[in-house]
Amino acid sequence: MILFNSDYLEGAHPRILERLAQTNMVQTPGYGEDEFCERARATIRRLCDAPEADIHFLVGGTQTNATVLSAALLPYQGVISADTGHIAVHETGAIEAGGHKVIALANQNGKLDAGQVSECCRLHFSDESHEHMVMPAALYISNPTEVGTLYSRDELQALRAVCDRWGLMLFMDGARLGYGLASPENTLDLPFIARTCDVFYIGGTKQGLLFGEAVVICNKALSRNFRYMIKQKGGMLAKGRFLGVQFEEMLKDGLYMELSQYAIDLAMRLKAALKELNVPMLVDSPTNQQFPILPDVVLTMLKQKYGYATIQRVDAAHTAVRFCTSWATRKIDVESLIRDLRALLK
Amino acid sequence: MILFNSDYLEGAHPRILERLAQTNMVQTPGYGEDEFCERARATIRRLCDAPEADIHFLVGGTQTNATVLSAALLPYQGVISADTGHIAVHETGAIEAGGHKVIALANQNGKLDAGQVSECCRLHFSDESHEHMVMPAALYISNPTEVGTLYSRDELQALRAVCDRWGLMLFMDGARLGYGLASPENTLDLPFIARTCDVFYIGGTKQGLLFGEAVVICNKALSRNFRYMIKQKGGMLAKGRFLGVQFEEMLKDGLYMELSQYAIDLAMRLKAALKELNVPMLVDSPTNQQFPILPDVVLTMLKQKYGYATIQRVDAAHTAVRFCTSWATRKIDVESLIRDLRALLK
Amino acid sequence: MILFNSDYLEGAHPRILERLAQTNMVQTPGYGEDEFCERARATIRRLCDAPEADIHFLVGGTQTNATVLSAALLPYQGVISADTGHIAVHETGAIEAGGHKVIALANQNGKLDAGQVSECCRLHFSDESHEHMVMPAALYISNPTEVGTLYSRDELQALRAVCDRWGLMLFMDGARLGYGLASPENTLDLPFIARTCDVFYIGGTKQGLLFGEAVVICNKALSRNFRYMIKQKGGMLAKGRFLGVQFEEMLKDGLYMELSQYAIDLAMRLKAALKELNVPMLVDSPTNQQFPILPDVVLTMLKQKYGYATIQRVDAAHTAVRFCTSWATRKIDVESLIRDLRALLK
Amino acid sequence: MILFNSDYLEGAHPRILERLAQTNMVQTPGYGEDEFCERARATIRRLCDAPEADIHFLVGGTQTNATVLSAALLPYQGVISADTGHIAVHETGAIEAGGHKVIALANQNGKLDAGQVSECCRLHFSDESHEHMVMPAALYISNPTEVGTLYSRDELQALRAVCDRWGLMLFMDGARLGYGLASPENTLDLPFIARTCDVFYIGGTKQGLLFGEAVVICNKALSRNFRYMIKQKGGMLAKGRFLGVQFEEMLKDGLYMELSQYAIDLAMRLKAALKELNVPMLVDSPTNQQFPILPDVVLTMLKQKYGYATIQRVDAAHTAVRFCTSWATRKIDVESLIRDLRALLK
Repeated sequence: MILFNSDYLEGAHPRILERLAQTNMVQTPGYGEDEFCERARATIRRLCDAPEADIHFLVGGTQTNATVLSAALLPYQGVISADTGHIAVHETGAIEAGGHKVIALANQNGKLDAGQVSECCRLHFSDESHEHMVMPAALYISNPTEVGTLYSRDELQALRAVCDRWGLMLFMDGARLGYGLASPENTLDLPFIARTCDVFYIGGTKQGLLFGEAVVICNKALSRNFRYMIKQKGGMLAKGRFLGVQFEEMLKDGLYMELSQYAIDLAMRLKAALKELNVPMLVDSPTNQQFPILPDVVLTMLKQKYGYATIQRVDAAHTAVRFCTSWATRKIDVESLIRDLRALLK
Repeated sequence: MILFNSDYLEGAHPRILERLAQTNMVQTPGYGEDEFCERARATIRRLCDAPEADIHFLVGGTQTNATVLSAALLPYQGVISADTGHIAVHETGAIEAGGHKVIALANQNGKLDAGQVSECCRLHFSDESHEHMVMPAALYISNPTEVGTLYSRDELQALRAVCDRWGLMLFMDGARLGYGLASPENTLDLPFIARTCDVFYIGGTKQGLLFGEAVVICNKALSRNFRYMIKQKGGMLAKGRFLGVQFEEMLKDGLYMELSQYAIDLAMRLKAALKELNVPMLVDSPTNQQFPILPDVVLTMLKQKYGYATIQRVDAAHTAVRFCTSWATRKIDVESLIRDLRALLK
Repeated sequence: MILFNSDYLEGAHPRILERLAQTNMVQTPGYGEDEFCERARATIRRLCDAPEADIHFLVGGTQTNATVLSAALLPYQGVISADTGHIAVHETGAIEAGGHKVIALANQNGKLDAGQVSECCRLHFSDESHEHMVMPAALYISNPTEVGTLYSRDELQALRAVCDRWGLMLFMDGARLGYGLASPENTLDLPFIARTCDVFYIGGTKQGLLFGEAVVICNKALSRNFRYMIKQKGGMLAKGRFLGVQFEEMLKDGLYMELSQYAIDLAMRLKAALKELNVPMLVDSPTNQQFPILPDVVLTMLKQKYGYATIQRVDAAHTAVRFCTSWATRKIDVESLIRDLRALLK
Repeated sequence: MILFNSDYLEGAHPRILERLAQTNMVQTPGYGEDEFCERARATIRRLCDAPEADIHFLVGGTQTNATVLSAALLPYQGVISADTGHIAVHETGAIEAGGHKVIALANQNGKLDAGQVSECCRLHFSDESHEHMVMPAALYISNPTEVGTLYSRDELQALRAVCDRWGLMLFMDGARLGYGLASPENTLDLPFIARTCDVFYIGGTKQGLLFGEAVVICNKALSRNFRYMIKQKGGMLAKGRFLGVQFEEMLKDGLYMELSQYAIDLAMRLKAALKELNVPMLVDSPTNQQFPILPDVVLTMLKQKYGYATIQRVDAAHTAVRFCTSWATRKIDVESLIRDLRALLK
């Protein structure tokens, strides 16, 4: 079986494992206060052109989202998210477990636009009994989104303006940030993101690390006592050095973007082939997740050999599915998939 | 000014105040363990034909909803509600503050139907990664709903069947239950509600008491240690006797339904007059809240003399508003309002 | 039976009931935004010599403590309390349910002293891994304490200094504040309390109201959005006017202190009689709760006629009990109790 | 510098890294549903003689404690712990953040005895107003404890009996379980622990893994929907296979106990040397943490060359410190330390 189900099917890029082995017997203090973490922080600050940014390393995405939002929100405040947002759907209510409502707005291709966020805030603050309702105080977006789409520079700028107007923290979930930055349609870069968001993270788990998300806090107000928040949420890794070692290795000489580019090239190759075969797409994604709508008879054959995620039934005879590429996807597997799709769709 | 803004504008029915005065110097234990509460419980069990029901008295609705749902749900479980449900909109995230997601489904006239609740559960439990999502485990409805509409006997029965199928607790918010039971369109009665719901409450605050909601727990599993839950949530009134005294007085000889009927008669009188005047309604409500859509020019005049709640702008020249009647509304004030509407709408 | 079990055995002072009846049919907006509440707030500001204080009325003590502390603390912060403090023992973990640790320090006669609070903070902030521990950020005291003792002006001043040094909010639970202020040993007054604490409350429930606690917020930082917090915690009474009506009546012309003085006089009468009889006391309380240690044989006789609270077994033949007086206690009942104690203890 | 500060100063045992490298490119499903985790589970069930046990792998201890206790407790319930327990002191209030009080009892050498746990429960359940207090519903112990001491078979049996009597879940934190089992004073074994506790965990982080704790749930009631709980708490590692790979390698042929024994032998060597030197110990620990009380003048010299943890000042001239050994400690470093101590203490 050749699996395209997700971008976390394999272990870590070999250089990550090598570096872990090399540094294995060095004695360091725990909890992220070691020299590896310090160097990784310096690298990220440099890449983001954000010398003042406060950087923390956490293990996984749900934990990161819950920790950041617990730090950002007061008890009666909530976070605005697309109704498809990871925090709105796929974190078993971690944000609510922290006491906060996820204010879900209708997505367009996985995204929110500035107008609808502004209108949500306006309705709240203009209501006479606004104190009977959850106060919106943060905006959660992901880039790429859960369906692989991207925010443009203008769109992100507009969201920033809305956040300024209504007093919202702007938080970007970057679990797949590299795949976004490597997309042919990308218009963002790390310094712009760091200037525009209050906080965001650079995903590692889906981008070739064993695990790890690097939280970049650009708004000082959010930094205060952030390590207490991490510890309380169970996110302070005892041997925190592993996070530093991995991010340092991945970011020091461009490996992160190189691997991202590799995955995107394969995804674009697949996308082009699907287009050529006139396969409709559930979403027009410019990143490493592709969502073709395929005939069920084709899928019945395909699943003998390939793994993929089933997204939704589209009509009586068609189903939308997801193929992911990653740093670990083999070119020959993509070519094999394309060949078989061609044969089956004839 | 004559106010129709809500059904909690005045104090309490005079008989309630008299009874409080009569019993004022009796010494009783606190926290609802007195003889007045015991007698009120016995009366409610009799009216509900539910000799085993566990009855608790709380002060207000938000507190009651939060307490019942904290007792009903495990940390990873959520409650399904209409998107217009009080818990979904107007309780400042009290349910989320207790750690639980409110799973909001699109309402039809303030209600949910069995099909959509079932589909929500089916989607959850059939998903391969259902443990990544909040598990639906309770269904919250209100009767009358927030927009004054009613569930029929068949509709409630159907919701019960869905709850049985998917393992949901069925919880009815009855903050205005009397006004529902007194409606000409009502098909429910207390014994039926007690047989069909796991838990519901008989509203007092909006029905002529100073304050108070009587929670009727019909499902033993929910009763266990419920008083711990009340105390933790801050809902255990020190002089709990006041709740018993009030409910006993209100329920012992039919005063509750008599006052409800009075308010409904006035609301129907107003509704008929509006119909005669061809005023469109935002919702066709058979209870004590009426939602006419009125020309702004009429409202400009009306508000010199009457209070009402503004609900939403309907078009450039019209606004939907709410008029409430209650046990305390004076007939002459309703007649005066009708007279003025007639004059203004000519 | 004559009950001395607590200070919330009866209803409310007759003037309270009369005033409720007088104002019963006035139409007011809900949720504490009415003219009665406004006038009660103005009265309290005047009595506290605190023209800027932000005043909120809540129904009960547990709710008030939970609401204030949720507003005062960030998620990783806790509140220091005597181990006998109400929040540490008798609120079913309401503070923990809000996410915060109660950092319990050993009490001396129900009180904490500045030194131990300071040492607790010093230990925290000087620890290298302080972020692995809950940060102390508020100090909860009650005056009178749970065992009837009082803080002196100097003691309170010293606690204030410690709070300033370590960045703690100083919060005084005044559920029985009147009984404290009326004590012969009292050295505090409302303006001093308002100048010294960040927030405190003037108890109503145990002081002759039906219910109600008046929260006085003297620190602006705590005021921000406090009504959201009240609503979320279920403490926003729909007919909030009742709180305003009661506090206005109680405070406008000295009734509050008059009733407090009455209860204290009776308690001091009882205390003197017990002293005369050489009855040892568990605590030397200068307020309305008295804690004699009585022979079990005496208690066996006494409980035929009188109610009291059992506090703790002291030795094989003696038990400490509590007698409370209140605004509602009858002089003849105290005299009868003293007479019977004299006869039994001979 | 030679560090003895903790048992998580280095990376992982080389066999762990090798096995990760070997299996790196295998494609597996995420979230712990892979073959490696399955095999590790089977191994643990076999070692524990618990064929029905439900096994979950989490990343770290604080996360594990919070997840288990959230699953074990209802909102108004709390967990009993020694006042030195990790959950009581060093997890930044993670248990309280989940809504539960940690009921801290006075430790004896880091342990609780059955009598004091029973008395705590008896006091609760015999109190007339027990619903005003947090209900004890779980007992948290650690073995070895935070100060390195061990529960005997009889002591654990007695705690089990108390838990049965009062309805408590018995939860053993085994972050250093191997070091306990390898101690010369140990009387426990895995099957006994599995028969006696409702839930416990086998620590990996401090025992030679990169990270990881294996939770063994022996009480079916606790298993129900446990994966929802893990996901909500942020503990569901995307590439969960890494936990399975590590535990499988560590447990399949005795490496876990071999490494534990190695660390204990070194600790006993150090302990014997300290005894010979007549150095008093803060605690008489039979495991890998040793707590000598050393003259400050000695420490001043020692810290030029060695790292250790400072525990507490004992008197004006002495301080208690902690030296940890682990699987990674070098024999020559222990010998060097002993040599230097001998020289300095002469």
